[in-house]
Amino acid sequence: MKGCFLVFEGPEGAGKSLQIGRLAERLAASGVTHTVTREPGGTATAEAIRSVLLDRPELRLDGIAELLLFSASRRAHVEEVVRPALKRGEVVLCDRFELSTRVYQGWGRGVAAKTIDQVTRAATGGLLPDLYLVLDVPVRVGLDRQGQDLEDPGQLGFFGPAPDRIELEKRSFRERVRKGYRELAAEEERIAVVDGSGTPEEVEGRILGLLDERFPDRFEGASFPL
Amino acid sequence: MKGCFLVFEGPEGAGKSLQIGRLAERLAASGVTHTVTREPGGTATAEAIRSVLLDRPELRLDGIAELLLFSASRRAHVEEVVRPALKRGEVVLCDRFELSTRVYQGWGRGVAAKTIDQVTRAATGGLLPDLYLVLDVPVRVGLDRQGQDLEDPGQLGFFGPAPDRIELEKRSFRERVRKGYRELAAEEERIAVVDGSGTPEEVEGRILGLLDERFPDRFEGASFPL
Repeated sequence: MKGCFLVFEGPEGAGKSLQIGRLAERLAASGVTHTVTREPGGTATAEAIRSVLLDRPELRLDGIAELLLFSASRRAHVEEVVRPALKRGEVVLCDRFELSTRVYQGWGRGVAAKTIDQVTRAATGGLLPDLYLVLDVPVRVGLDRQGQDLEDPGQLGFFGPAPDRIELEKRSFRERVRKGYRELAAEEERIAVVDGSGTPEEVEGRILGLLDERFPDRFEGASFPL
Repeated sequence: MKGCFLVFEGPEGAGKSLQIGRLAERLAASGVTHTVTREPGGTATAEAIRSVLLDRPELRLDGIAELLLFSASRRAHVEEVVRPALKRGEVVLCDRFELSTRVYQGWGRGVAAKTIDQVTRAATGGLLPDLYLVLDVPVRVGLDRQGQDLEDPGQLGFFGPAPDRIELEKRSFRERVRKGYRELAAEEERIAVVDGSGTPEEVEGRILGLLDERFPDRFEGASFPL
């Protein structure tokens, strides 16, 4: 069986970690071998980059330096975690991938889309998810939820749960990020927007419905559809 | 006065540091404002990357991960050191730049030239030196000199003077690197090969002759020509 690469995206406080956990439990209950991961994914290279940046909050990083560091981290994560799991035929559930870079460094910080695309291709060798699930919530809802979801500080702050640089960014940044997700989803079949409002059960129901629609055969017998 | 960006390249043991020092003394004696630098050039971002990699020799880095990390470091160095000095109109003498990446990660480790070019352009914004001076010595001479030139361990080992990964690479790697320098120089006017054999005085004479030939007006009155 070929592996399946599913990536959850969305702003801080959208509930990605929660929904990944729920889907992982469902896969486990159905006996579907899977890997749950997130960048930096525990690789030595990526953790080394992470530890430096955690210890050095004074570093002056522009959008392009961020792009290059995230991409170095992504390279290690893809080669050491994601590709091996897909080769083993597993379902890979990943918290953020290159779409975050396009949205945060591109829409958020103004790095040119072509630059992001070229650097990302170098890092990933062109690997893309089978599906991006973007949990979409109004900026206000994300901000309200964020206190309950400190493990999910967004890509600019993937280096730790503590208040970080993204916390300091303006609300307009969050609006640009949301707009970026929605506009890219309108252009690419691979990116699906899921209404992230309501209870966790309601959001989960939408996610399962989407997976059933997009992969009618793949998850058959794995308790999809509901 | 517009700045002038001169980069010294070549294998380990070619004598780059020595010749940069001599040229810097000559510029100083002539009252030419200049900056001597090398990647990572003392920027906080680049030093942070350097310190991680020094402390973590066990990291498994492939050629592309190296490319991305060097490029993140280069981004900081270009934006914080090189461009500001050029804008002030200075002569910038730099020990290694993107040509090292093309030669070491490309010719040495097999990363595609197009990939290197795209990532490098993201990092540098297209900035290139006015001239690359490649000090060319036979592989055997470089190896013999290397013990006297521990500050110059080559790009794979820019992270410290101690014996590093490049020391462990085979002689064939060094041969590929030398071939890479020579073939790229044959294709690009911007890259000049300087015979690095003989005494330091002999090599210096060749360098000054080359600068006089390439920049007949720029260094006038700055003790060029000899």
